[in-house]
Amino acid sequence: MAELNYIMPVEVHNNLVKAAYMKRGFSEVESEQGARFCESAAWHGIKTHNAIKALHLDDHFGSKAGGCVPNAEIVKLDTPYEAVQKWDANKKLGQATAFDAMDECMRLADKYGVGVVSVDNAFHYLWGGGYVIDAANKGYLAYTCCTAALAEVVPFMGKHPTLGTNPHSWGFPTQDACGFPICIDWATSTVAMGRVQQFLREGKELPPGAAVDKDGRETTNPADVSALVPFGAHKGYGLALLNELFGAYGGGSLPTLRNRWGEGDAEEKRTANFYFQCIKPEALAVDFAKGRSQADNVRAVIEDILGHGNEGCLLPGQIEARNAALSKKHDGLLLTQAEIEEFKAIAAEGGVAFDEAALKSVEL
Amino acid sequence: MAELNYIMPVEVHNNLVKAAYMKRGFSEVESEQGARFCESAAWHGIKTHNAIKALHLDDHFGSKAGGCVPNAEIVKLDTPYEAVQKWDANKKLGQATAFDAMDECMRLADKYGVGVVSVDNAFHYLWGGGYVIDAANKGYLAYTCCTAALAEVVPFMGKHPTLGTNPHSWGFPTQDACGFPICIDWATSTVAMGRVQQFLREGKELPPGAAVDKDGRETTNPADVSALVPFGAHKGYGLALLNELFGAYGGGSLPTLRNRWGEGDAEEKRTANFYFQCIKPEALAVDFAKGRSQADNVRAVIEDILGHGNEGCLLPGQIEARNAALSKKHDGLLLTQAEIEEFKAIAAEGGVAFDEAALKSVEL
Repeated sequence: MAELNYIMPVEVHNNLVKAAYMKRGFSEVESEQGARFCESAAWHGIKTHNAIKALHLDDHFGSKAGGCVPNAEIVKLDTPYEAVQKWDANKKLGQATAFDAMDECMRLADKYGVGVVSVDNAFHYLWGGGYVIDAANKGYLAYTCCTAALAEVVPFMGKHPTLGTNPHSWGFPTQDACGFPICIDWATSTVAMGRVQQFLREGKELPPGAAVDKDGRETTNPADVSALVPFGAHKGYGLALLNELFGAYGGGSLPTLRNRWGEGDAEEKRTANFYFQCIKPEALAVDFAKGRSQADNVRAVIEDILGHGNEGCLLPGQIEARNAALSKKHDGLLLTQAEIEEFKAIAAEGGVAFDEAALKSVEL
Repeated sequence: MAELNYIMPVEVHNNLVKAAYMKRGFSEVESEQGARFCESAAWHGIKTHNAIKALHLDDHFGSKAGGCVPNAEIVKLDTPYEAVQKWDANKKLGQATAFDAMDECMRLADKYGVGVVSVDNAFHYLWGGGYVIDAANKGYLAYTCCTAALAEVVPFMGKHPTLGTNPHSWGFPTQDACGFPICIDWATSTVAMGRVQQFLREGKELPPGAAVDKDGRETTNPADVSALVPFGAHKGYGLALLNELFGAYGGGSLPTLRNRWGEGDAEEKRTANFYFQCIKPEALAVDFAKGRSQADNVRAVIEDILGHGNEGCLLPGQIEARNAALSKKHDGLLLTQAEIEEFKAIAAEGGVAFDEAALKSVEL
């Protein structure tokens, strides 16, 4: 069913978002990085982690709540390990921190083949896919994971939520092989808590194996949901635990106290922890059959996977790539009426004039 | 129900397995590495990837089939990227290649904080958990993935198997934090093809979402199974695709021709591809709350996750650690009567005297 979409020029969007961040005390550079991230999310059709979510997060956990500090300076710690950096983000804006960290991974990968940046005392970076797609578009195999804001997920066979929805994001520079960077990007819970709330509003049942009640019993009734469950039983549990472990080695906090600013031992840390990694594709290249280039070999493998009757399958990142192509075709960010209403409030906060009537629109 | 287990001293086991490999033409060093791996698998109670499987694999895909070449020399390619090596394994025995590659990752991590080895033209390394547990026991955060032998898995929404069961293995040096290295280790299919065959023998139904018939329709009847399905829908599909992509960048082959020595274009490569990575924990350490050491912080996070009513949950790798503790307690590898029968054949192949009656036994 066709829906009316407004086309917001990138420049208009970025000015609005930048002004709102600056109004909150963020520097011009970090406000621009914050806006640039939100542009990327909207450009790729990510409705859950765009500017609206970014500013709401800042309200609830960020500069208005103590989890994020405008103008914070990242401290890069001394280390004898040349290909791995460790940064104390000092609660700097998540998007600014994440873009800088991934840029550093790319520089390290240029020299060492692989580069890692471990970031502690961090604030929510929103959508990991945005950073790995950016790095993949620049030619790197990229990866990031982080400890998610709140402990909402029960360990496999457990009762109490002690894990975040802990996402993983991998990006591959496959634009020469299939036209867009493959991006494998998801949280390790079966569904997000936002989905539970949506199903509650809509009177729908959850799928089996997605959530538990307060006694740790599986439930499909959104009204009874106390916590989420990892996808894929013990396998998803392992992947959710992985973020907590990488976090713990980097200095990450106890999951049940993360972002719980008023609870528990005051001396405990409550911030998120990020892991970033880039690999230079050339550093992996051993040799290729039939005289193929590396990109040709990647293309041949992808074509084999999507051949033999699998032509209807999607590649991870393909939906985001289609959305990006639509944004490019219409030369702007495609936003619904409801989103435009939110942007009016963002414009008002930043004191920027915003003329909804000046936006073109398209039925999609 | 208690079962009789024979206790095979490690030295007896390793002599038998080494002799069988040497009989097949492998060098003393690679035969010892092959045996050492099989010891580790048996020590940790891995029944599916022990010496019996290793030698069967060599029969079906290895030195007897052309996929593995005794005395092959690994060629380490020149590279300007100091923290990443690329090796042409020239079909060397998988266990020998994998131990050497993980050792090199540890050396690189000592210097650069992170080390990667990309291995092409490789032969099946059996159980990735063995290599990451070894590295974790030596103090590293370790990871490996590989392209699995045969394309048995259908892409999400697909019909034809074009992906391997592509495993991932992560090891963490958590022995100081919880008594054993956490090891997250599994294939990306819901079940293994061996499980389908077991269920067929036993007249059991498969769980839903595990397999498809020849038309790509889901089936729970093991007799109708044509291919397997990734665990966790699109999420597991992404993880299975990841191995193919890492493989493709390294020189890996078309999945549908992998290990199919008699089929398709003769110029295509048919070997597996491995990715190995180690990280030095110190390289990630930013700072820790309450003056904790890194190990203390990891312990605090694990205790938080397994607290609050989750005390009955297992950590990944805990079952393997329990098995290792049992092996240590009984001072040998615990083998069933059926396994002892197989070892008689292994002993006969290698021309080694094997006195079953000399083995102690225990009810477990």
